[in-house]
Amino acid sequence: MGSEAKLVELRKLMKNSGIAIYIIPSTDPHLGENVPDHWRIIEWLTGFSGSAGTVIITDTFAGVWTDSRYIIQASNQLKGSEFTAINPLEKKDYISWISANVHANEKIALDGRIFSIEQTRKLEKLLDNKHFSFDFNCDLISDIWTERPDLPHSLAFNHEILYCGRDRSEKISEVRKIMKDRRADYQLITSPDDIMWLLNIRGGDIRYSPLVLSFALIGVEQILLFADESKFPLRMAAEFDRLAIVILPYEETAGIISSLSAASSILFNPVITSSNLYQAIPSGMNRVEDINTTTRLKAIKNEAEIANIRKAMIKDGVALTRFFFWVEQNIDKEILTEFFLCEKLNTLRSLNENFLGPSFESIVGFNEHGALPHYTVTSETNSAILGNGILLVDSGGQYLDGTTDITRTIAIGTPTEKQRRDYTLVLKGTIDLAMAGFPSGTKGFQLDMLARRSLWENGLNYGHGTGHGVGFCLNVHEGPQSIGPGFGQGTKTILEAGMLTSDEPAVYREGEYGIRIENLILCCLDNETQYGQFLKFETMSLCYIDKTLIDISLLDRKEIDWLNSYHVDVYEKLSPFLTSEENEWLKHKTSAL
Amino acid sequence: MGSEAKLVELRKLMKNSGIAIYIIPSTDPHLGENVPDHWRIIEWLTGFSGSAGTVIITDTFAGVWTDSRYIIQASNQLKGSEFTAINPLEKKDYISWISANVHANEKIALDGRIFSIEQTRKLEKLLDNKHFSFDFNCDLISDIWTERPDLPHSLAFNHEILYCGRDRSEKISEVRKIMKDRRADYQLITSPDDIMWLLNIRGGDIRYSPLVLSFALIGVEQILLFADESKFPLRMAAEFDRLAIVILPYEETAGIISSLSAASSILFNPVITSSNLYQAIPSGMNRVEDINTTTRLKAIKNEAEIANIRKAMIKDGVALTRFFFWVEQNIDKEILTEFFLCEKLNTLRSLNENFLGPSFESIVGFNEHGALPHYTVTSETNSAILGNGILLVDSGGQYLDGTTDITRTIAIGTPTEKQRRDYTLVLKGTIDLAMAGFPSGTKGFQLDMLARRSLWENGLNYGHGTGHGVGFCLNVHEGPQSIGPGFGQGTKTILEAGMLTSDEPAVYREGEYGIRIENLILCCLDNETQYGQFLKFETMSLCYIDKTLIDISLLDRKEIDWLNSYHVDVYEKLSPFLTSEENEWLKHKTSAL
Repeated sequence: MGSEAKLVELRKLMKNSGIAIYIIPSTDPHLGENVPDHWRIIEWLTGFSGSAGTVIITDTFAGVWTDSRYIIQASNQLKGSEFTAINPLEKKDYISWISANVHANEKIALDGRIFSIEQTRKLEKLLDNKHFSFDFNCDLISDIWTERPDLPHSLAFNHEILYCGRDRSEKISEVRKIMKDRRADYQLITSPDDIMWLLNIRGGDIRYSPLVLSFALIGVEQILLFADESKFPLRMAAEFDRLAIVILPYEETAGIISSLSAASSILFNPVITSSNLYQAIPSGMNRVEDINTTTRLKAIKNEAEIANIRKAMIKDGVALTRFFFWVEQNIDKEILTEFFLCEKLNTLRSLNENFLGPSFESIVGFNEHGALPHYTVTSETNSAILGNGILLVDSGGQYLDGTTDITRTIAIGTPTEKQRRDYTLVLKGTIDLAMAGFPSGTKGFQLDMLARRSLWENGLNYGHGTGHGVGFCLNVHEGPQSIGPGFGQGTKTILEAGMLTSDEPAVYREGEYGIRIENLILCCLDNETQYGQFLKFETMSLCYIDKTLIDISLLDRKEIDWLNSYHVDVYEKLSPFLTSEENEWLKHKTSAL
Repeated sequence: MGSEAKLVELRKLMKNSGIAIYIIPSTDPHLGENVPDHWRIIEWLTGFSGSAGTVIITDTFAGVWTDSRYIIQASNQLKGSEFTAINPLEKKDYISWISANVHANEKIALDGRIFSIEQTRKLEKLLDNKHFSFDFNCDLISDIWTERPDLPHSLAFNHEILYCGRDRSEKISEVRKIMKDRRADYQLITSPDDIMWLLNIRGGDIRYSPLVLSFALIGVEQILLFADESKFPLRMAAEFDRLAIVILPYEETAGIISSLSAASSILFNPVITSSNLYQAIPSGMNRVEDINTTTRLKAIKNEAEIANIRKAMIKDGVALTRFFFWVEQNIDKEILTEFFLCEKLNTLRSLNENFLGPSFESIVGFNEHGALPHYTVTSETNSAILGNGILLVDSGGQYLDGTTDITRTIAIGTPTEKQRRDYTLVLKGTIDLAMAGFPSGTKGFQLDMLARRSLWENGLNYGHGTGHGVGFCLNVHEGPQSIGPGFGQGTKTILEAGMLTSDEPAVYREGEYGIRIENLILCCLDNETQYGQFLKFETMSLCYIDKTLIDISLLDRKEIDWLNSYHVDVYEKLSPFLTSEENEWLKHKTSAL
């Protein structure tokens, strides 16, 4: 069935149910970043394959709202279809569109299993004056999508103490203690990463994140784990029994929630809890809305995790060093393409111990492709790395002992003055944030400008945040904290010792090249003075920074010292694992400025 | 009547009215920073003379809540009375205290004329579960306070175009245009500074701010100005008539508001509108809550105002230069005290053309007194400036052509290493913020860390904001914008070209000394690039920065260049107005580092 036939079918169903507007989001019941194919409704329906979007369908209109990074991709992929790609910079958001284009008293429907409470509330609030009726329990897709992929069924496995450093029973006790303080009888957890962390398990349901799709309801005595039981190996049974962890069918989550006592109280996060689950909460039950108790605990890495992250960084740095060494040795010998380099890098990383897979889709962007912050090479765009230019490589790995994410930008051939200037200004940002010292209580929005200052002073900027939280063998984007100009909740979260965050300022010259230099930085305690406890960052990622792109006249003494000392560290930590040829090369790459 | 007798009287009245808790704020009906003596109820009742506080009275308890800067003063002034000074750092805020100490179903009362809507809402919300009853129209003071000072009755005067640069009719049109866009039939203005700006008038009702106490109700055709008519000179009548500005008695504000059509809409700011005026709004009338339309317009200084500010800065800098010159010439000849230096500085400033008075109570703090950010010298504290030490001088003037606010810290005798280090770190903050470049849309909380960075890196910090907005011949603290770590609304306000803000990092060494270096900085357009419009600051204040306190090894090249260039500017602009002796001295003070 082609895109048009699907639309005809869908509109037939809409008409039968008296629905004027049907809304389809790009999310799944866990409302996270990556979704299994089963929930890629928008791609199946429209052909648009980007990770974020909302589709609006009426009897005369079909539109796809995306965000700014997908503008070009959406209009290409939707060309020739009945779907219009809506440029978010030019048009209204989809709620305003509905408000302006749909008549009052009409019915708006969506599948509340994949729509957050927060989003449905926003919808109701913004359309309040229009007297629409809403149906938040409307799945029109399942009947039409006949060859729909199954939900994933990977096997769960124990994430050993050796890696995660802390017993699940301890974590559960700590969560229950917080629940008690918050007067919550239940904590509903809808995010699989929180569940994996709490129970010390991992899986393979979601690409790039080692998760088992699941919900959990933590009570005072029991933990109900809603997941496909066949995913759990028998040897986990005894331990789960001991801790009163009961596995129940994934589909029964809402049903069980609806059976809870209305005299009890439940804690949940409205941003990642579906409207469907929310509606299941018995009326009268006391609701406490906040981020999950697990989210903050998980973000603060324990000592064992930190020691493991250090090991993972060495492995990852070795793979990356080998990669860049290989590129330099072979660039003049054969034609290297972006696609090929992606594969080469993945292969080198996959040789590492405890490697589970890449932590996100690698970005290898040459020249103008580097200027697209979320560039993914396809057979249509695949460029050969020829002539002078700038190569941006952003990649990471999932290891049992940590999650990595690192970006390096290197010169191919001879860089221009402008490229060296841009690169050095970005590098100043990476370094200046890494060198920050700040008092306890500081939030990400207070530090953001350190990464931007040198760019701003030169009329440059970048349109994304400066740093995202990073999980431990979990999501590569994992809050609650982030560093940015103060828009989202993440940047308003206090940075605490043990939190791992990226540090990735950039400059994008549209149609020319992109430069981004990204390290992961760990927040650590520094000294305590009469003015309070102070914190600092330790740079964890290990890979040389291309000196041929540096204009040293733009760096101040402290920045030069930082870079030299970082390069000493990189060489000392990686060289034991390199061949003598690689070592000699790295020695040169990391020699003092 | 002594403090105890007053309390007896008050409790009698409370008992008669069945009131369990009576709340007295330190504010007046305009809810601004400075209040006339008529509204200094707390000082009259308790003896505590600080500018911020809240008194709670029950039949067994009488407490004064202040903020951290008044802890010591409050406990001194309340010693021996029945009033307890509550240390805000150790105890709960007054609302939590009420919640914890008062029984349910009891009556809480306050005078809603001097309590903002926002505060009463907070009170109702936080005490919601306690089933208290509230009386927000309860004035128990007027009957007891027999010798209460009258409301002030200064004369209003025309603030000439020569100074303010823009005709009142133009300003009124612009406000009405915004009202139309906001669909507001009325704009209620409760802040006299907004009214002064809009109508190009000034007065002398409030110490430190040239205001006429007034409310205004701007309609589509008329402006109702609620103020004592006798304050307005006859020659304003024709102009007011022409613009349909009608003066009505100050006391009739609530009555007139209550007579507005319920079918119309009114715009007001809940933070500075009293509960009493809010209650007067007819039920059913459409309410738009936001900052006043005038507040943002007023904050963006026009070209004439900016040109005038430059002139005011020269005059002010000349007075300050003469002051420091005089101090240096006389420090070894006679005993100088803090009190005397305050007077000396006020006298030198008062010689300036268009001077109306100081813009706030001058701070002259020697050594440990400088460590109190809001130190006011009294006959008990008055120190002689003897021996080695650090002298902090924070002062400002109100001129017809601008408002100034400047802090300089100078060495008396030979400074210590630690003093020089602290001073230089503070100076780096002042300079780094002054040198900032940033894109359009940047808010104050994004820039705050520039002023703190060097301090934080050395385990230092200061407990107040970095910069407050400054009025034009109006309030020395005047938003909406501010620069700080992101607590208040001010730091979330976009900085726009034309806004004048202070830049005042500091270090306070309790019991030793305080260092603060403050300039006013004007936000200006910088270049426009493909990344958008960029902005920068121009430092407006003109006075040398004491080089004997600088440890040059802590400054980077850019900071040294900034300081040298600033000193060239200071000398060039001030020297034409100085004697040859003063000139020679300033030449030396401003010579290149």
